[in-house]
Amino acid sequence: MLDIADIRDAAQRLRGVAHRTPVLTSRTLDAMLGARVFMKAEHLQRMGAFKFRGAYHALSVLTPDERARGVVAFSSGNHAQAVALAARLFACPAKIVMPADAPAPKVEATRGYGADVVLYDRYRDDRAAIARRIAGERGAALIPPYDHLPVMAGQGTCALELIEDVGPLDALIVCAGGGGLLSGCAVAARALAPAIEVFGAEPEAGDDMRRSLHAGHIVTIEVPRTICDGQQTTAVGVQPFEVIRTHVSDVLTVSDAGVVEAMRFAFERMKQVLEPSGACALAALMHHAGRFRGRRVGVTLSGGNIGVERFVALVTGAERAA
Amino acid sequence: MLDIADIRDAAQRLRGVAHRTPVLTSRTLDAMLGARVFMKAEHLQRMGAFKFRGAYHALSVLTPDERARGVVAFSSGNHAQAVALAARLFACPAKIVMPADAPAPKVEATRGYGADVVLYDRYRDDRAAIARRIAGERGAALIPPYDHLPVMAGQGTCALELIEDVGPLDALIVCAGGGGLLSGCAVAARALAPAIEVFGAEPEAGDDMRRSLHAGHIVTIEVPRTICDGQQTTAVGVQPFEVIRTHVSDVLTVSDAGVVEAMRFAFERMKQVLEPSGACALAALMHHAGRFRGRRVGVTLSGGNIGVERFVALVTGAERAA
Repeated sequence: MLDIADIRDAAQRLRGVAHRTPVLTSRTLDAMLGARVFMKAEHLQRMGAFKFRGAYHALSVLTPDERARGVVAFSSGNHAQAVALAARLFACPAKIVMPADAPAPKVEATRGYGADVVLYDRYRDDRAAIARRIAGERGAALIPPYDHLPVMAGQGTCALELIEDVGPLDALIVCAGGGGLLSGCAVAARALAPAIEVFGAEPEAGDDMRRSLHAGHIVTIEVPRTICDGQQTTAVGVQPFEVIRTHVSDVLTVSDAGVVEAMRFAFERMKQVLEPSGACALAALMHHAGRFRGRRVGVTLSGGNIGVERFVALVTGAERAA
Repeated sequence: MLDIADIRDAAQRLRGVAHRTPVLTSRTLDAMLGARVFMKAEHLQRMGAFKFRGAYHALSVLTPDERARGVVAFSSGNHAQAVALAARLFACPAKIVMPADAPAPKVEATRGYGADVVLYDRYRDDRAAIARRIAGERGAALIPPYDHLPVMAGQGTCALELIEDVGPLDALIVCAGGGGLLSGCAVAARALAPAIEVFGAEPEAGDDMRRSLHAGHIVTIEVPRTICDGQQTTAVGVQPFEVIRTHVSDVLTVSDAGVVEAMRFAFERMKQVLEPSGACALAALMHHAGRFRGRRVGVTLSGGNIGVERFVALVTGAERAA
């Protein structure tokens, strides 16, 4: 199982490459919620999301020979850009398998980093199988988005930095898709602040992680219909779940409307741009504020990759989960 | 005339009260422009704009007796909120004269800080006369938005911090309305980096400062029709102009479309929300990039007070200068 030593090692490898992102605070939010909130600004990370941490770390632990044969990844968006950017920094070839309905800016950005993009149908094809086939053909290393210890360790540096910077917290809320960020952050948080309660945050329509935690085994769901395109996973990863069942207290769910409300709050009061999944943990805190009153709470702002047009569609109600 | 000692004194008084805002950089922007750009993030200042610096400093130099009689200000928006917040921090009454067509969130925020708001017609009434009358009736101190040495000194702390944090710059671009920020920053910049070239940035439709600088005397224009509501001044202030004619190399103008483009860039690439006037200096840099190639350039991001609805109207083209 993932250990704090793995995360500290990842932090060493990421030093000077990943940004040590700032921790944002808001007097307005604290007054609204009656809590002290510390937001880890991973939307200001390289390529606009926390995913760079795990991807770069996963490439860094490959041998030079392995990297020379290239890397392959499948991703709904930000992991794609993360692997593409990491591959460019290591000067190795990258092939990325992406859903055909992924936001255009994410596809363009991935190509912009020099990766070769292969599109698939999110509702019909098995992306993992496609990626494995490509990896087999080329002898390339598959970099999974979350069910992979080096990725989990990389994502955990996010909570490591947060608690190093602000001190112990009573609670930490982390957005959850496949569980890479949540598992890594849970291990880091419990190691640095043993009394901390760690929560996942996911969209109501895709509450597989909450159900899995309550059931004690992994529950698989249909592809969830939600605006949170970074969290349209059907099941938590096996290795992340081992960590999550041990270290995570509960998973909080939020409606898409609640996510848009959090995006608006971030825009108007904090002057920050968050993509839907990037605002999910903040939305969970705002919606479940009663549980956190009087406490020091950490929250991940996990990504900001959203174009102006999609932001407009979401805040005007022109786009809803399809 | 304003001196660097005044600005250093203002910095002392602002310590621990105003935020020492971060300096933002963007690899994408640097690559696009072929320059090294350092952006002073005053949209993350208290109440969302640099104006807090000047307002708080101006109140801090009043005697306790003067403050007890209250303060009065006239403003197109951010100065109003700034004086209202500063007055609240000093627990003194504030009366704010605002244009009736000021953005609603700015009026609400001003009232939210506990100030009493008096509305006037921007195209018909003389706001300065209204404010002076109120001040006369109440024995309250008038806090002008820019033509006032303590305000200019407070705004100058913005460039002081920027150059302290990033070292000498070849050029500094500062958004200009009445000239408070530009004059204060010019004095600080030239004191810390004597070889620096300082530029103002203003909307094309309201280029009174450029014309004044070229003419060698203050030129007054009609209220300009521009989306940059923080720069709808008709003439630079007398005291700011004395500084500007001495220390400012030129004033760059930008179209409203160029300002929206800079707002989009800040949103999509930097994940930052800027109001039109807050994006004016960045827009000027992007539009006049040839002049800054290969140079280390400072830019003020001066404010981020814009609601989601107005942002949508601007980026969709539904709002144009009326």
